[in-house]
Amino acid sequence: MTITRTRKIQVIHTLLRARDLRRLRRALERLDDVQIASQLDNLDYADQKQVLQLLTAERRPEIISSMREESAGPLLAQLAPQEAALLLDELEADDAVDILQHVGQSGLRKILEQLDKDDVDEIEELLAYDQNTAGGIMSPHYFRVAPEATVGDALAMIQAEEEPPDTAFHVYVVDDDDRIVGVCSLRTLVISLPGQTIRDVMERDVVHVSADTDQEEVADIVGRYDLVALPVVDAYGRMVGIVDVDDVVDVIREEATEDILKMAGAGEELAETRSFYGSLRARWRWLLAAAVGGTAAAMSLSGYDQALAQVPALALFMPVVAGMGGNVGMQSSTIIVRGLAVGFIETHRIKRIVLREVSLGVVMGLAYGLLIGSSSYLLHADVDALRLGFVVMMGTAGSMTIAAFVGTCTPLLLDRTGVDPAVATGPFVTTSVDVLGLLFYFWLASRLLGVGG
Amino acid sequence: MTITRTRKIQVIHTLLRARDLRRLRRALERLDDVQIASQLDNLDYADQKQVLQLLTAERRPEIISSMREESAGPLLAQLAPQEAALLLDELEADDAVDILQHVGQSGLRKILEQLDKDDVDEIEELLAYDQNTAGGIMSPHYFRVAPEATVGDALAMIQAEEEPPDTAFHVYVVDDDDRIVGVCSLRTLVISLPGQTIRDVMERDVVHVSADTDQEEVADIVGRYDLVALPVVDAYGRMVGIVDVDDVVDVIREEATEDILKMAGAGEELAETRSFYGSLRARWRWLLAAAVGGTAAAMSLSGYDQALAQVPALALFMPVVAGMGGNVGMQSSTIIVRGLAVGFIETHRIKRIVLREVSLGVVMGLAYGLLIGSSSYLLHADVDALRLGFVVMMGTAGSMTIAAFVGTCTPLLLDRTGVDPAVATGPFVTTSVDVLGLLFYFWLASRLLGVGG
Repeated sequence: MTITRTRKIQVIHTLLRARDLRRLRRALERLDDVQIASQLDNLDYADQKQVLQLLTAERRPEIISSMREESAGPLLAQLAPQEAALLLDELEADDAVDILQHVGQSGLRKILEQLDKDDVDEIEELLAYDQNTAGGIMSPHYFRVAPEATVGDALAMIQAEEEPPDTAFHVYVVDDDDRIVGVCSLRTLVISLPGQTIRDVMERDVVHVSADTDQEEVADIVGRYDLVALPVVDAYGRMVGIVDVDDVVDVIREEATEDILKMAGAGEELAETRSFYGSLRARWRWLLAAAVGGTAAAMSLSGYDQALAQVPALALFMPVVAGMGGNVGMQSSTIIVRGLAVGFIETHRIKRIVLREVSLGVVMGLAYGLLIGSSSYLLHADVDALRLGFVVMMGTAGSMTIAAFVGTCTPLLLDRTGVDPAVATGPFVTTSVDVLGLLFYFWLASRLLGVGG
Repeated sequence: MTITRTRKIQVIHTLLRARDLRRLRRALERLDDVQIASQLDNLDYADQKQVLQLLTAERRPEIISSMREESAGPLLAQLAPQEAALLLDELEADDAVDILQHVGQSGLRKILEQLDKDDVDEIEELLAYDQNTAGGIMSPHYFRVAPEATVGDALAMIQAEEEPPDTAFHVYVVDDDDRIVGVCSLRTLVISLPGQTIRDVMERDVVHVSADTDQEEVADIVGRYDLVALPVVDAYGRMVGIVDVDDVVDVIREEATEDILKMAGAGEELAETRSFYGSLRARWRWLLAAAVGGTAAAMSLSGYDQALAQVPALALFMPVVAGMGGNVGMQSSTIIVRGLAVGFIETHRIKRIVLREVSLGVVMGLAYGLLIGSSSYLLHADVDALRLGFVVMMGTAGSMTIAAFVGTCTPLLLDRTGVDPAVATGPFVTTSVDVLGLLFYFWLASRLLGVGG
């Protein structure tokens, strides 16, 4: 990742703090919409509102739509509904919807009351789609033409359009029933003769998705086929919109963030981690799993009380035995979870993957077991320490092998059963790996050291 | 993430295993290039080569370029150099370079020997750029026009181009010194009069980057400005290429994968985890950090031998005390690392972030400490157990608070000093959180239980 980006001087924040409104106004004139938007993203509502007031009315809509939807939504909710409606009126329907999804129910109703009936209809239609599907991220604006039209007709239509779609690089060819029969790039139109019919110059195979396709699959298709726009059809096969590649870019980031947060048991969205309560809500249940698991571990180990009383040094190596297992388990499960997410797992070669991971667990386990075991011997160098060292070594190796196995199989099994494997790397697996590893360690100790168990 | 995608039937693999070449050939005819490519990605070399031989020569280049570069490179290295050169000859220079970067040094030289001198020059020029910069992912093919040209001239140029760039949606306007002075979308050309000069219709503010800009910053700019192509200039400000949005889509995925793997101490690329040795190389050093840290923990706790001998139950709760800390630390550092990566951290409000995380650590620590502490009391219900329960409770709370603090501050400090904060969530921090948490727990025990320390 780039570090420079996050360290860029936040001029707006600095000038706001210095209360230097004259210089702030000049800075705003100098910065472009996207630069202002990305600085606004990281300010609090009061500051955001103050900056908005300093901007001319013409610039505001573009700046709002360049902000992250997670920051633009709450900001809009803070404005007077009329003011918010005025801003939204200038946006493309899909951008407006993205933002409105983060406004909250009561704010949404108040803002919709202020908009034109036509706009409201369009927005409500889009809002009806699940936010995480093709329908939820598509734009209903695109160029469409009949197959019988000529290239000249299509060009004339483009020329006549006063408010063209944001990304107008293609003309979609639909029949009388609104079914997609082809697509023409603008370049094709430009290099064809005006008299040719669209049917003769169009591309016939059009990759498209249905409106209820998951946004991650949409992103995958756009990425695989190198598209700049993907047509969306309804349940009857009628074209209802297009997903632009710039929305896909947002989706990919969003889904990666979701996976990363889920893997750490820290919720699904960065926005919810911004407030104390949001963060608490997102995080407590994962910790509950770890707390219950850890307490269960303490209980299941309680039979080894006596062994611990006889050889307290056993306890000293508990953290490293469990920790090495936890780390290997985390490595294995992360590789599997991410591999599944980006389609880089040979799903028909599960056996080979499990074998590879487990043998890594064995080899690394023996190597690090030897290292940790020897250090335990050096720490307490007598005859019994030799046996203690051996227990620590084999305990580490066993814990790491078990962890590699559990860390590999859990996400693979979850994927098979249709559960999101990203949850497999969370506290739950870490804790179960801890318990299994330590049980093995103490079992070994009771066998080899002849202590109570 | 979508689960369906990874579960799609791998027809090619199934038919290969059944040795049913007749049906395989028919299946290949029915599948499109991208579908074949994505199934090839997950086969081994022998199978990939066999499928390539079944395909017509015309289809091969497109299929190779639709494969992941991490799989296409090694596959190319397995082919005869002449055959590889024949395939590459059909690709755009930037796609060829992406694949060649994964071929290996000796393979690369042999393949380049088979290509035309012109192609080699172009490829070597692109190979000279760092793979992770704008130069490394740009394409040298794009439409360019002088500001004095007319709209008609530009359209004529587009019409005359026999091998147009893959994504030709814009014409870039450059002056005599190759400096970018503007850009025209094809739509602008279509709606303008043929006699108008480009200077009069072009957009003057062109967002662009220099060739050495990090690819993650490129992705960020393309995402922020909703671009489909971003012009790249050299050190003298001369335009040398464009980065297409479809390459950016790959970059975003790649960088997310890199962050995820780094956070788990499992390397940087999924490709390196495919082989036993690659995986070993990527992972061992992180585990070394954990092993050394864990051993250091054992040593630093060894002063508490006596306490453990007197109250062996203390040991039973070590895993949960350390584990709860590790989990909270992982949550905090993940939120910070990902927030920094996508620019969702209020970098000028560090104090507030640290305060929020630490208070979450305190609140959740007290809550879970109470839960775990009570269960320890119930397990050994006598007067001393009340004190043990209190030690376990406060130990958990302390460990979680310390972890939240360390997990939050480490990535923030690393970011300040220019180190990639993604390494902060790896085994190193987990281990140090373990040690600090347990030291606190034993210190507390020696104070409150009056046992040796």
